[in-house]
Amino acid sequence: MDEVKVIEIKKSIFDDNDRDADALRSELKKRGVFLLNLMSSPGSGKTTTLIRTIKLLKDKIRVAVMEADIDSDVDARKIKAATGIQSIQLHTGGMCHLDAEMTRQGMDNLALDGVDLVILENVGNLVCPAEFDTGAVRNAMILSVPEGDDKPLKYPLMFSICDVVVVNKIDVMPYFDFDLEKCREGVLMRNPKARLIPICAKSGEGVDAFAEWILGEVAAWKA
Amino acid sequence: MDEVKVIEIKKSIFDDNDRDADALRSELKKRGVFLLNLMSSPGSGKTTTLIRTIKLLKDKIRVAVMEADIDSDVDARKIKAATGIQSIQLHTGGMCHLDAEMTRQGMDNLALDGVDLVILENVGNLVCPAEFDTGAVRNAMILSVPEGDDKPLKYPLMFSICDVVVVNKIDVMPYFDFDLEKCREGVLMRNPKARLIPICAKSGEGVDAFAEWILGEVAAWKA
Repeated sequence: MDEVKVIEIKKSIFDDNDRDADALRSELKKRGVFLLNLMSSPGSGKTTTLIRTIKLLKDKIRVAVMEADIDSDVDARKIKAATGIQSIQLHTGGMCHLDAEMTRQGMDNLALDGVDLVILENVGNLVCPAEFDTGAVRNAMILSVPEGDDKPLKYPLMFSICDVVVVNKIDVMPYFDFDLEKCREGVLMRNPKARLIPICAKSGEGVDAFAEWILGEVAAWKA
Repeated sequence: MDEVKVIEIKKSIFDDNDRDADALRSELKKRGVFLLNLMSSPGSGKTTTLIRTIKLLKDKIRVAVMEADIDSDVDARKIKAATGIQSIQLHTGGMCHLDAEMTRQGMDNLALDGVDLVILENVGNLVCPAEFDTGAVRNAMILSVPEGDDKPLKYPLMFSICDVVVVNKIDVMPYFDFDLEKCREGVLMRNPKARLIPICAKSGEGVDAFAEWILGEVAAWKA
């Protein structure tokens, strides 16, 4: 294809977020609480995936959820109604991501005694959440089939920081030009250690593999 | 559903972006150039929609495109190869949106003589791009069916600032629980003047209505 003009435009951001994130992680390690940061585009099926996953986990470990959203509280309500677990909503007031300080504000509002795992559902966005360490022990993301298999090429930072990429809506793969192997190659190019887990949150297919990955990570963190 | 705890966490942002945006718009008015800011989630089909739309426009008006992306230049290349029009890529260096100053940097790199319409493909993100006036004359967004009809509820600012909402991938509506009327209600709740245009960028269905809306707006701006 033709050559095109490329202009580099940028702003810089400075803060102490990395230090805050490390401090939060150390504290979580001491308390034996695992924090999972779950990211995705809008509409990828984060909440449905979470509900399925929590149902598989909640008899084995104690789980709590923090739902970040610009404005609404429908997700936290949905999770609580469907699973009965402790679920709070974080309003970001228009902010496009959570940083470690914002995550800590959320954690301070959870009853953490006896809790093994806190899942943070980050703001639906493939860009900004990747730039800010929340203090989580692991990062996971959900990529849904209709978004396309080229997303690892277009959102490099997001895919490079994720330990696991859950590929959701595999039931509609026949209707989209989505190549799972091409997607896997893209994911591994960004992070050779990343794990890819294809699921259908609607039917529950594959969700057990995601739940088992979480259980393994939680056990390792608490060991 | 059950009540859940809601915590307001926020940061504030101050800058002169509104002034810069107004200045850019005044300049464009003088030069008779219309700038359209096109936003969406990742994977909604922005580039495919653009190619279809430009093919309908390019014999009637002179069009140029600025493709904003974190890192790659595949979109600008695709547009140029498919339509032959002037197309440049803006690398945001990790930034999640474009502001008016960044947009101006892009405009300064276009040959604007004789150009009637510049389309800015903003970064794939439903949050941050809505917060920054780019200096565009109109804002459009693409919402794709797999993302769900509840997005106007979850991304209020984006839907409140868009003059037109293009609903893409209507061919897969039978496979998703997407209610076009519910979506329309949500869009109109955020912005009663918004226009909703259902399309299938893959087949071209409905794209003529989007192209005609653009032609009308460009003519009004240049009048």
